[in-house]
Amino acid sequence: MSGKREQTGELRQRIERHIEAIGEFTATPGEGTTRLTFSEQDRQARDYIKRVMTEYGLHVREDGFGNIFGRLEGAIEGAPAVLVGSHFDSVPNGGSYDGPAGVVAGLEVARLFRENGLKPKYPLEAVAMIEEEGGRFIGGLLGSRAMLGIVSAEEFAATKDKDGIATVEAMRAIGLDPALPGKREAADIKAFLELHIEQGPILEEEGIPIGIVEAIVGLTQIQVTVKGRAGHAGTTPMDRRADALAAASKIVAKLPELAEEQGNGTVATIGRLNVYPNGANVIPDKVVFTADLRAGREEDVLGILEKAEALANSAAGNGIEVEIERQLYIRPKRMSGTVIALLEAGSRERGIAYRPMNSGAGHDAMIFSDYTDVGMLFVPSRGGISHHPAEWSDAGDLARAVEILYDTARALTEAE
Amino acid sequence: MSGKREQTGELRQRIERHIEAIGEFTATPGEGTTRLTFSEQDRQARDYIKRVMTEYGLHVREDGFGNIFGRLEGAIEGAPAVLVGSHFDSVPNGGSYDGPAGVVAGLEVARLFRENGLKPKYPLEAVAMIEEEGGRFIGGLLGSRAMLGIVSAEEFAATKDKDGIATVEAMRAIGLDPALPGKREAADIKAFLELHIEQGPILEEEGIPIGIVEAIVGLTQIQVTVKGRAGHAGTTPMDRRADALAAASKIVAKLPELAEEQGNGTVATIGRLNVYPNGANVIPDKVVFTADLRAGREEDVLGILEKAEALANSAAGNGIEVEIERQLYIRPKRMSGTVIALLEAGSRERGIAYRPMNSGAGHDAMIFSDYTDVGMLFVPSRGGISHHPAEWSDAGDLARAVEILYDTARALTEAE
Repeated sequence: MSGKREQTGELRQRIERHIEAIGEFTATPGEGTTRLTFSEQDRQARDYIKRVMTEYGLHVREDGFGNIFGRLEGAIEGAPAVLVGSHFDSVPNGGSYDGPAGVVAGLEVARLFRENGLKPKYPLEAVAMIEEEGGRFIGGLLGSRAMLGIVSAEEFAATKDKDGIATVEAMRAIGLDPALPGKREAADIKAFLELHIEQGPILEEEGIPIGIVEAIVGLTQIQVTVKGRAGHAGTTPMDRRADALAAASKIVAKLPELAEEQGNGTVATIGRLNVYPNGANVIPDKVVFTADLRAGREEDVLGILEKAEALANSAAGNGIEVEIERQLYIRPKRMSGTVIALLEAGSRERGIAYRPMNSGAGHDAMIFSDYTDVGMLFVPSRGGISHHPAEWSDAGDLARAVEILYDTARALTEAE
Repeated sequence: MSGKREQTGELRQRIERHIEAIGEFTATPGEGTTRLTFSEQDRQARDYIKRVMTEYGLHVREDGFGNIFGRLEGAIEGAPAVLVGSHFDSVPNGGSYDGPAGVVAGLEVARLFRENGLKPKYPLEAVAMIEEEGGRFIGGLLGSRAMLGIVSAEEFAATKDKDGIATVEAMRAIGLDPALPGKREAADIKAFLELHIEQGPILEEEGIPIGIVEAIVGLTQIQVTVKGRAGHAGTTPMDRRADALAAASKIVAKLPELAEEQGNGTVATIGRLNVYPNGANVIPDKVVFTADLRAGREEDVLGILEKAEALANSAAGNGIEVEIERQLYIRPKRMSGTVIALLEAGSRERGIAYRPMNSGAGHDAMIFSDYTDVGMLFVPSRGGISHHPAEWSDAGDLARAVEILYDTARALTEAE
């Protein structure tokens, strides 16, 4: 046991050092991590990750989208690989853990393979992906979507940032080669494992160090436009108004109750709302807001969607018009039962408490789940905070998660 | 009667011609009237107004603030003057009537004095004031506030636009002299009469051509800040949220009911509301909105203020904090009973239907009411629309209003 503890202690220190080192590559020092894809900070983090991969005895390769792979070859020639990793970009003024925690987990799983002299039958790859956050190029999850062919090389090349700079231009500017091979066949990937911080309060509040993800919730967003009639705040009597904000506020106030009624962890959020013309003495003639609706089961996604649309439509009449635009629909994604069983077995054998849970946020794992077996672990986020400089997770929890991933990757690669 | 109709017909045509001519002086042709104070368009409108004053036999004078006066001397030496007029600036992309209708009324009242060979005992002055709208320099009502000494010449000189250009610089740039006398003593003004478009729907809906203003409503604005806790829209369960927008929306949805409960024409408007950070997948941690509360009686202003503050405070708790800042408090202003009686008599004698009403908007008349007897007439606004290129009032209604003002000014100047 003392040897094991020592091993975990060292692992913990290495994880801490990597997280700290990658966190230094920020465009906003002192104001959190800002590491946009193909920026100077991307290049610095990329060099660091590649250097560690080399140091850990992995074969380093970048693809034509800028994703990084560190491969430990398997005994079976041409066999599909087990990928372990996450993304290394950040939101503007984000934290050090969202993404890098999973990248570092991939590196350290590979290191444990080498350290313990394992010989996998199937190849193991530590992977670090670009642009999960959509902080620079539109849409998010770009690294995994391009890798799996959902975004073609042509579409990828045509994608521009808000300044009109194309992905491929930005790649060349930091010395990357967009002409390298990009898409991987599903048959080339045996499984994908991702460690991520929870970005929510549940694990911390329950004092459980590990969450084993069962599903990544389905997500739909609707944009609701409420139109009324402008008028002077002083000269328009109350009974002659068609106040778009007063009407919209009834929808906004009621939506949380509908999510609670739907239950099963259904959540509904109105995070963005804009008022027009937005003058203190003008009755608003238009309000536009986005309702973000999520649930672990598709029937709940559809249920809350129907309730939200009915609620919005109920505000119409008396000079108020309501328009609803469905903007996004992503089905819930189930993680692989086989991989979940391996993650649970690893936790149990190591005596680490865990709980099954859903992921309320989207992750690269969501993209992989349509192509291969996917497993995902969460570690507690302090205060449930993420996308903020205060984002923090305990390196001890990360080390425990890496050990469970190591056990799982060992089984999946059939390493001996 | 036919002579009278002919006279009204000519008056109507002159009014139409003036309104149209002044409306041409806009910085945004085809997109409504944009005539900011001391702009090139101000200079053009000013030249037009001064030319008409001269043509109508008035003595033209500008003061050190850029206000314009066309005076018909009275028989009593040094007697206080009866002023008739309004402002000639506009909001950006506004209409042709808000302001100019009242300026033109002043000109045409004076013309009727000359046309009918009246000899007033007290002087009559047609007046055209600057910067009622606050479109260029902060605060609004600047022409009347400076004229009456509420804003001193020093404060006036130090007032700058958003580009840092001071009033006095802007005056000199269009050939005006800020060194001219400015402040007028209250004792120098016998009464102030203002015609204005209603900017509301009441007169049009009731088919009444004239509103006789009894009070300009009192106004208070409070800024409410609702603070909650940010969180990820997907990863934060409903029962662990402190959603600032969900909390704020309950206040916004309920406020109109409180205004209706208060009654007596009380109005409450939330026209400006901003959500932070305003991202589709982030639970809002802050909402800031302004509640604009108005009533004709001060007890109603205080009543709705108390109710609105209690409502806002009731949203606090469960992680939600509410801060209220009182930003503005203006008591209701009563118009002069004497002048109201004269306006009513004029309407009755001419067989013109009228109704008493409150002004929900602020006007220069509000400033004068603390210093002298003030009377104010409204004419219907088509569709209740103002501050918009579609602003329109019927020249026939304007002509009727001018005739009532003429009768009233004749009585007040004791003209024979």
